[in-house]
Amino acid sequence: MLVVGAGMVGASVALAATGAGYVVSLIDADPRAVDLAETIGAGQQADGSTNPDLIVVAVPPRAVPEIVVDQLRLHPKAVVTDVASVKGPILRSLDDLLEPAERARFVPGHPMAGSERSGPLAARRDLFVGRAWAVLSDAGTEASARELVVAFAQACGARVVHLSGRDHDAAVALVSHLPHITAATLAGLLAQAPAEHLELAGQGVRDVTRIAAGDPRLWRQILSSNAGELARMARLAADGLSAFADQLDDAASTGASEALTGMLNLGVAGVSRLPGKHGRREDFVTVDVVIPDRPGALAALFADVTSAGVNIEDIRIDHNPANEQGHAQLAVLPEAEESLARALTEHGWSVAG
Amino acid sequence: MLVVGAGMVGASVALAATGAGYVVSLIDADPRAVDLAETIGAGQQADGSTNPDLIVVAVPPRAVPEIVVDQLRLHPKAVVTDVASVKGPILRSLDDLLEPAERARFVPGHPMAGSERSGPLAARRDLFVGRAWAVLSDAGTEASARELVVAFAQACGARVVHLSGRDHDAAVALVSHLPHITAATLAGLLAQAPAEHLELAGQGVRDVTRIAAGDPRLWRQILSSNAGELARMARLAADGLSAFADQLDDAASTGASEALTGMLNLGVAGVSRLPGKHGRREDFVTVDVVIPDRPGALAALFADVTSAGVNIEDIRIDHNPANEQGHAQLAVLPEAEESLARALTEHGWSVAG
Repeated sequence: MLVVGAGMVGASVALAATGAGYVVSLIDADPRAVDLAETIGAGQQADGSTNPDLIVVAVPPRAVPEIVVDQLRLHPKAVVTDVASVKGPILRSLDDLLEPAERARFVPGHPMAGSERSGPLAARRDLFVGRAWAVLSDAGTEASARELVVAFAQACGARVVHLSGRDHDAAVALVSHLPHITAATLAGLLAQAPAEHLELAGQGVRDVTRIAAGDPRLWRQILSSNAGELARMARLAADGLSAFADQLDDAASTGASEALTGMLNLGVAGVSRLPGKHGRREDFVTVDVVIPDRPGALAALFADVTSAGVNIEDIRIDHNPANEQGHAQLAVLPEAEESLARALTEHGWSVAG
Repeated sequence: MLVVGAGMVGASVALAATGAGYVVSLIDADPRAVDLAETIGAGQQADGSTNPDLIVVAVPPRAVPEIVVDQLRLHPKAVVTDVASVKGPILRSLDDLLEPAERARFVPGHPMAGSERSGPLAARRDLFVGRAWAVLSDAGTEASARELVVAFAQACGARVVHLSGRDHDAAVALVSHLPHITAATLAGLLAQAPAEHLELAGQGVRDVTRIAAGDPRLWRQILSSNAGELARMARLAADGLSAFADQLDDAASTGASEALTGMLNLGVAGVSRLPGKHGRREDFVTVDVVIPDRPGALAALFADVTSAGVNIEDIRIDHNPANEQGHAQLAVLPEAEESLARALTEHGWSVAG
């Protein structure tokens, strides 16, 4: 296989593929990137003899259509895929540039994994393990081409999600881009509030706004590339907040009270639909431990948890705003709760319950 | 001192005060609640001889004005405070019910601590440690009364934030109630989306929507009690999302690009203004470790971290949506990064970097 583009994602693809037994060649407009990628074991510089079955195009979104066309024509039997995070503009360009027989060999892909870091040295072999990898196909896609890309994504450890191009862009608008601008909107109001109001902030507002700390230049590009879908969803969210405001204006009435409860119930339903561990946590009970702010406190807790012989399913640390102390929430199976709490209490920890 | 109301917050106040050396009496409309609170060491049932200097009213918000008036008149030298989470309606009622000399001895308070659990058995001695505790006063408040309440909140381990009543309700609308309805609005859109779109969800959308899982009946009451301030802020947030939508409609233009970057920059500024550990995390570097989903994996990691002798400043576990594996992000001082990563690698852990 051939990876075009040896940045963070491309080099991670090359590392994961090498680990899965693929023979990987690499090219990049910047020869130093290929050198660095070779250094970390992410394949070899491609040469004239390279004849790949599969080509992964991992270049910046704007360059994708041209490179996809080039690769499909250079390698007339190969399957080509990409890793761009928004597909609409790319697919519209390619509709104009490709013959149907060429288009049948292009299977757009999008691994849902990233990092704030860039360049081949930020690559990770396990970047895709357990992550979703969207594989896009339509009536014009060759079935064998799609299967080759699916098998590749699975070999990298990812979980394949089948979508159409239009569904893909709507899905990332909903689960990634809209949450970002929602967090940014709320954080923007924090930016303009009196400082003493922020002194009352707890964990909730931190969770809701955390992602708004992302790089504005990078996010402006991402959001702009999915502008149509995202603008539509931003208006739905604005309408939702206005509906809350309208019902609050009339909060004393029975109708408004029922409407508010209905909107809050819908939110509960939405959270519960998110797949994964998130929902599973309900099966566990939580043991809360106070962590004093002194050197080694967390390590000491780990040591005592280890000696208690209890399997910890999950852990979450909540810090208080004053920086003086925190809580560790240790999730365990219900039958282990008592013995863990007792063991930690005996070791001098303050355990809530 | 006397605590009126032996629910979760009242009993926690009584426990914390007892721990701080106060002699605590308790009353509650439900005698069983007082019995339970006594059982866990949260003071004694009040009797005819009870003559408190300080009275904490910890009853449901609607009952606060009447109980405050009663207590101020029963104990004409005592200072009275409360713990209600919204103050406007209470203060407006009391303006009609109290003489200025009585009003001078009432110092509204709001400890920013809660729990999903209720009743005296959910009480925690350390509930307020390191949390903000808003103390409200105005020109009519007796200085010595305010100082008594401030000293009490500090004795419970809290960090006092001085606010006026109007500022208080605006502050909780911003840092608590608006984040809740924003999360609920976004989660409501998730509730209506095709299931396969949610398969692409990552950590970001989980963080933004998590608090929307809170009890809708409880939250409906909280939001309704602060309806005026919250409706105003909900409209500001709706306007913010509409502004994103408008600029996205025109995303190709230079002006829109600058406006989007500006709104995202404001979000970054807002997140950075939140006080506490949140900001401190920047001083640390993160070592990422892959955690396989097998019994004992976290405990084994804790054991190896402990044996590495490195002080862990913070830990965060990210789960992938497929439930098969997670990442632990261990925050350490920059000088400890290399030795921790080496020690964990030697113990067979997959460490990113």
